[in-house]
Amino acid sequence: MIGGQGFPDREFETRVARAQAVMAKYQIAALLLTTEPDVRYVTGFLTRFWESPTRPWFVVLPAAGKPIAVIPSIGANLMGSTWIEDIRCWSAPNYTDDGVSLLIETLGEVTEKGDTIGVPSGIETHLRFPLDSWQRVQSGLSDRTFGGDSAIMRDLRMIKSDAEIAKIKDACNVGHRAFSRVAEIASAGVALRDVFRRFQILCLEEGADYVPYLAGAAEKGGYADVISPATNAALEKGHVMMLDTGLMLDGYFCDFDRNFSIGQPDTAVAGAHEKLVIATRTAFEQARPGQTAADLFHAMLGVVGQQGAGADAGRFGHGLGMQLTEGLSIIPNDHTVLAPGMVLTLEPCIALGSGKIMVHEENIAIRQTGAEWLTVPAKPEIDVIP
Amino acid sequence: MIGGQGFPDREFETRVARAQAVMAKYQIAALLLTTEPDVRYVTGFLTRFWESPTRPWFVVLPAAGKPIAVIPSIGANLMGSTWIEDIRCWSAPNYTDDGVSLLIETLGEVTEKGDTIGVPSGIETHLRFPLDSWQRVQSGLSDRTFGGDSAIMRDLRMIKSDAEIAKIKDACNVGHRAFSRVAEIASAGVALRDVFRRFQILCLEEGADYVPYLAGAAEKGGYADVISPATNAALEKGHVMMLDTGLMLDGYFCDFDRNFSIGQPDTAVAGAHEKLVIATRTAFEQARPGQTAADLFHAMLGVVGQQGAGADAGRFGHGLGMQLTEGLSIIPNDHTVLAPGMVLTLEPCIALGSGKIMVHEENIAIRQTGAEWLTVPAKPEIDVIP
Repeated sequence: MIGGQGFPDREFETRVARAQAVMAKYQIAALLLTTEPDVRYVTGFLTRFWESPTRPWFVVLPAAGKPIAVIPSIGANLMGSTWIEDIRCWSAPNYTDDGVSLLIETLGEVTEKGDTIGVPSGIETHLRFPLDSWQRVQSGLSDRTFGGDSAIMRDLRMIKSDAEIAKIKDACNVGHRAFSRVAEIASAGVALRDVFRRFQILCLEEGADYVPYLAGAAEKGGYADVISPATNAALEKGHVMMLDTGLMLDGYFCDFDRNFSIGQPDTAVAGAHEKLVIATRTAFEQARPGQTAADLFHAMLGVVGQQGAGADAGRFGHGLGMQLTEGLSIIPNDHTVLAPGMVLTLEPCIALGSGKIMVHEENIAIRQTGAEWLTVPAKPEIDVIP
Repeated sequence: MIGGQGFPDREFETRVARAQAVMAKYQIAALLLTTEPDVRYVTGFLTRFWESPTRPWFVVLPAAGKPIAVIPSIGANLMGSTWIEDIRCWSAPNYTDDGVSLLIETLGEVTEKGDTIGVPSGIETHLRFPLDSWQRVQSGLSDRTFGGDSAIMRDLRMIKSDAEIAKIKDACNVGHRAFSRVAEIASAGVALRDVFRRFQILCLEEGADYVPYLAGAAEKGGYADVISPATNAALEKGHVMMLDTGLMLDGYFCDFDRNFSIGQPDTAVAGAHEKLVIATRTAFEQARPGQTAADLFHAMLGVVGQQGAGADAGRFGHGLGMQLTEGLSIIPNDHTVLAPGMVLTLEPCIALGSGKIMVHEENIAIRQTGAEWLTVPAKPEIDVIP
């Protein structure tokens, strides 16, 4: 059960069967997967060891049958605890052949001359092993064609099972409990960097496995960006503080933020917060199968208006799941049709002048008849820390 | 100062000057950097936002002059706080041109027809943007040659400045204080998963910015591997528990572990722990400029003997710094000559039979005349939690 994160084998059988059905449609003879979420999606292999960049990890998904793991021997025991049966190992790091021959052999075994091997190549993907090795793999299989994966992995992962949505909701609940305790850890005079440390402690106390992502800011009348690390500057009355957490539980993320006013908010901040909350509610009401990501963008833009168009966070939300951000983007050019099983963040942004912005973020799931809140949605009134 | 993590601009000027000197030697007209540590190394751009895989980030290092940042506009404010002046942004995600044209234009500007553009391609590297975009960048600059970076980034980052070593030592001290409090959070009956949560809390309380990596295990007579996530199984008398943390402070990692016996250890466990500690001390004594990584491997193997040869963790240590693991590996085939400024983990492993192992890990810096402990080295006697 370690490797499977509590999913029954059937969960993985279903994922693989779906992938193989689309592979057949696109005449892809095998998929080569190299990144943490793609490998985990088809195997259940869950470890924080990916933090080390040293060793490559490969999973080959043939046209039929279970995935084959081609991995460093340090992972053999853990991979052996998953539903995967064919586990091929080498002792890594190996400076002359770091899994390359074993991968070529495996891909060669499950494909034939002229076949296409699919490698995720589109937006949000990357190849997680050295270019030198990649060139050797291509040369070693020069009678096969390497192509993209026709977004198979992206599309599959975008539609979550009920079991996956339950895990994301559990993560959201941990985040909710942590946010409801922020007054315990933040007040005027406390350094933002210490607030960050203490907020991560709250997340862990409330049940997070770990906290891969925390961003935020605290400035007067809004903040300059949403990705900077915390400084040692102390909170002051009049600051609006935003904390945005991506905590993980059982291998799944939540990703939402909350704003707090240190002391009473000014009218602009209070008004922006109210508008942002109403924007998420408006998008929530509209979110159902058949609508598009772009529709949700315009729904939120309709509320935040010109103030929103000027803000530069790039999008008004995105998919989430095994990664902090994955799948669709809530932007005018994303015409992905919403479907049951999608999990999204709604994240409108408002510009407040002088380069300041405010953002607000909730998490929702798309169900047959509409949307379901995974977060407990915020009130229009910004929380005040006296 | 946010972006610079407290380093003076001179730190970055020195790094870039060193890179450009080696680029000249290998006739590399520009380097293309795409990963978090490589981008941060030359710019000081520090953010946890890399957790989101959606957007690519590029830095172009020309043959002379400062690096040029080619980044999503969401990062403009933070990059603007670093020493970088030339910051070129696009609004990402962009489904038709996600930074590709801007990158081609920038690379075209700083190189000429026939020039070689270096891209890190060797062990531990990867290209952090989609293969589709990479192919378009290559086509768009078909009169340039894309080649490796001759390990410039790896070699440069392997030799730390005193300021970098000080940061790693600070991180080690945080870890030391957390480990010295483990008896507060772990005892028979506590689930290992809760020990993990509580240990991360200790790290944060003691000053970590965050805890990207925690692994460990608790089993009788050793553990089956060192990369599995924690389960809900409770600690029992007779277990040997290992916690291995990679916590981060100011953008730098420590990476070391400690073993604890729940109740009195049996002879095999106590003996293995003593041998592991003696092995690290032996390697420490031998570690000085002129020795090689392989020499340290053999020094530790001489202590752990046949028990060590059977264990399969793959190596007896590695470099560390901006990443949990980076640079050299302590294996028989790594003949890297130790030099002042290197920071290493010493991490021997012993096999205990029935598939069980034990590992022990310390962090050291290589100085002119020998090694310096960055961790407070463990005693030969394993710590006992009554």
